[in-house]
Parts: sequence; structure tokens; C-alpha cells
Amino acid sequence: MKSRNSVAVLGPRGTFTEEAAKKMFPGRGLEHYDTVEDVFEAVDGGAEYGVVAVENSLEGAVNTTMDCLLEYDLKIRAECVMDIHLCMIVLPDAGKEEIKTILSHSHSFGQCRKFLKKNYPKAALKRYDSNTAAIKELADLKPAGVAAIGPEAAAELYGLKISRKGVEDAPSQTRFAAISKKEGSGKKSSIIFALKDRPGALYHALKDFADNGINLTRIESRPAKKKLGEYSFFIDFEGSLDEVKVKNALLSLKEKTTFLKELGSY
Amino acid sequence: MKSRNSVAVLGPRGTFTEEAAKKMFPGRGLEHYDTVEDVFEAVDGGAEYGVVAVENSLEGAVNTTMDCLLEYDLKIRAECVMDIHLCMIVLPDAGKEEIKTILSHSHSFGQCRKFLKKNYPKAALKRYDSNTAAIKELADLKPAGVAAIGPEAAAELYGLKISRKGVEDAPSQTRFAAISKKEGSGKKSSIIFALKDRPGALYHALKDFADNGINLTRIESRPAKKKLGEYSFFIDFEGSLDEVKVKNALLSLKEKTTFLKELGSY
Repeated sequence: MKSRNSVAVLGPRGTFTEEAAKKMFPGRGLEHYDTVEDVFEAVDGGAEYGVVAVENSLEGAVNTTMDCLLEYDLKIRAECVMDIHLCMIVLPDAGKEEIKTILSHSHSFGQCRKFLKKNYPKAALKRYDSNTAAIKELADLKPAGVAAIGPEAAAELYGLKISRKGVEDAPSQTRFAAISKKEGSGKKSSIIFALKDRPGALYHALKDFADNGINLTRIESRPAKKKLGEYSFFIDFEGSLDEVKVKNALLSLKEKTTFLKELGSY
Repeated sequence: MKSRNSVAVLGPRGTFTEEAAKKMFPGRGLEHYDTVEDVFEAVDGGAEYGVVAVENSLEGAVNTTMDCLLEYDLKIRAECVMDIHLCMIVLPDAGKEEIKTILSHSHSFGQCRKFLKKNYPKAALKRYDSNTAAIKELADLKPAGVAAIGPEAAAELYGLKISRKGVEDAPSQTRFAAISKKEGSGKKSSIIFALKDRPGALYHALKDFADNGINLTRIESRPAKKKLGEYSFFIDFEGSLDEVKVKNALLSLKEKTTFLKELGSY
């Protein structure tokens, strides 16, 4: 049983998601889970809120989050954008030995692809469920010639040394969402839909928003998981699901979709 | 120097990409590279063709391929869709011992997420640059209690045993593209563009295609790598870049974009 008052986040301690959760829910108790899917499962099972990463300005959508938003019957309740700075992290007694292996999350590797290619072209990259899990493994096993990439806070938390700050290829931001079973309210909303297969289908779907003066802030496509060429669309837009113009757009959109799911206003 | 006649593919031997390359270029010599980016680099440096995975029907777009199509000045010359079947692969003398660690590519893990959650909820997942790299490591190091997920052909190639076939959550297909420096021709085309920031921007961009009777077969957004909320759009459509209706649509689209790149017809 999850405590009803807790906030589920991606663990272990020290992840960017934890930082986002502290910002969104100051003073609340956090429960750490191994994967994004486990966070959704926890909220579905009784945790009041969960916090998950949605997209990064360099690496794009977090696929697992997208797929879980589709699968689980949960709502988006709030969002929060954080600047992401990544560090090269080594053992406290590391000298000038060659770094042969680097540990991190695949998204973090994606965010410093050019840095790695230039400075560590021969290093093997080992991927973990979170960059903090990678940092924890480095701290636990203390292997020689191994570094990790992740947040400064996590390096400090696990008693490791930062060999270089700001290794991301460009300034980067990540958007986090708070999810819960209950619906919220707010000036921004998200929906997911799949379209009937006909020429210009997406164009006609977007027309419903344009005709009603609704500004889209994001569109992502994810495979519908049936066959290639069939997609679900994730759309964020300015406006509440309660507003008349939004209701009108969704009513018209519904006729063109094979399914339409509201993720709530926040 | 790359041999001018060769086809660059993701290695090591036995990857799905290698299978796709053999289907697209029967009888041609293959050169294996460690990462998707290395394949682009090889073609940029003189290999006549490269073959890369573009999208999977379960896991979606291959982000590195998308980003490299944007970065490198290369064209899409052909495409090929393959059915993907994944196997649980173990050491030839494996008995009934518990599987504590599973090795594969993150996309393959994504394709059998439910299978893993049901059958190996506690197994640690270790990610590699390709599922064949994971299989090769299993064959080389022969660790106890470790399995890999990947193609049947690779299991046979590295002398391993298949403990279960068809572990993917649903039938899955991957689309591969052949890339080269030279432009090709064909009835399908791909472009990338970024839009000036104004309300309904994407809607008006898609209108150019709808007005000219051009059917879009795929749209993907990728972050523009500057700040959250700015995206590049990857569009595949039916029609050749030589056709008048396509030229008209692109001429009109160009006025709305901050950049527009043609990836060729194939």
C-alpha cells in the first residue's frame, strides 16, 4: 500500500526528477521508484502524486512517459521546467588514468553526444535506468577508469568528485509533469488521439484548433503499436478543457478520431 | 579511407540493420560500425551507402537517426520495412538458474517491456549500442544468470541458445533507410523544416500539402535543440520532389519556415 500523502519519483535519491518534485511539492515526503513505469504504477495504486520527465529540449520526448500517459488512466496536474546541467563525475581519488567506460542514462548520453565524441571517442557507454543509478553504481563498486554523467547534486550525495561541469552540448531544459488520479484545472491542457486513416487527416484535426483560435504548444507522434504508419498524437494547447472554444474543437475533432483521451488541464 | 563500393551498417555482425542492408543491397560488401552516428560519418567520408533504422512500430522514431539526418548533408535513397522478432537468448549450457541480468538495446527493451515486467520483474536491464553488441558480450564473457534479447540470426551466429522466441509485446516492424551523398529519385520524399513561431504555424504548414493534394505518410517532431517549445518537423509524403504539385507546396511552405531541408526522393 502506498501512503496516500506521498509523491512518487524516479530514484535513487538525487535524480533531476527528485529536484523537480521538491520544487513542485515542497516539504512533501518522496518515494523513490526504479523506473518511470513504476512511478505510474505507484500513483495508480494509491500514491497521491507522481513526478515524471516529459521532454528535454535536446533529446526530445521521453518515450516511456508518453506510452504510460496513454496506458494509465491518470491526469496531468502540474508541470515544471528545469535547467539541466550535466557533470563528468569520477571517484574521489581518481587521478589522470584513462576513462574507458562512462555510465549514465541514455537521455543524458544524448544530451552530451558531441562532448563524448570529441573527448572520449573510445569510451564504452553503459546505460542505466537513471543517471543517478549510474552514479550510485560508480560510488558502490568504485571501478577504475570509469566515470558517470549526471547532476552535480547526485555527485555530492554519493561522495564523488566532479571532473568537469557543463558537459551538455547546449543549454538544456527538461519539462516534468505531476500526475495523479484526480483531475485538476488550469490554463493549459493535453490530449491524446488517433486519427481515422484518410488523406490530410492531421491537417483537418489541427484545423479544429486553428478555427477555434486555440494555440498548440506541442505536438508529438508516437506509434499506435499496431503497424508502421499508424500513430497516436499528443497535443498540448493553451486553454482549459472547461472553455467553450476547447469543447467545440474537441467535439469536432472527435468525429475524426478512432480514440480521444483527455489528460486534463493544469 | 572507406571503400567507395561498400555499405556501412550498424555492427557487430548479425544486427537487424545488417539483414536490411543485405535485402537492399544483395551481394554488396558490408562494413560494420559501432553506432548510428558512425554510419553517417562513414557515408560522409566516402562509403557509397549506409543503412540505418528510422522507426519501429512499437518504439517509434530512432532519435539518433533523426538528429543525424538533420546534421549531415546526406540523402535518403531507399527504404525497406522488416518484421522484427525478438528472442530471449542464453548461454548454450544454461540450465534453470535465475536470470538476474538481461542485456539488449534500449529499443529492444522497449519492444518487450510487458514481457519483461511479467516474466523478469526483478532482472537488471543493461543497455548496449545494438542488441547484437549485447549478444556478443554474452557470448564473449559467458556470465552466469545473464540473458540477452535480440534476433535469432545473431544468437546462431554467436553460438548461443534461444530460450524463447517472439518475446516482443506485439508484432513489430522496423523501417530502415539507405543513405548516400548522391540524390536519388522515386515516388516518396522526405523533408525537415522548422517553423516561424506564430499561432497555428503547423496547421498552415500542413495546409500547403493538403491544398496541393499531397498525402503525408509520417510526421515526427524533434526538439530544435535551442529551448523547450521549439521543434523541427520531419515529414514523409507521397510524391517526388520533381513534381509540380510538390514544388508548389514547398515554395509556399518555405515562406513559413526558418529552415527547410530536402532529404530526397526514393
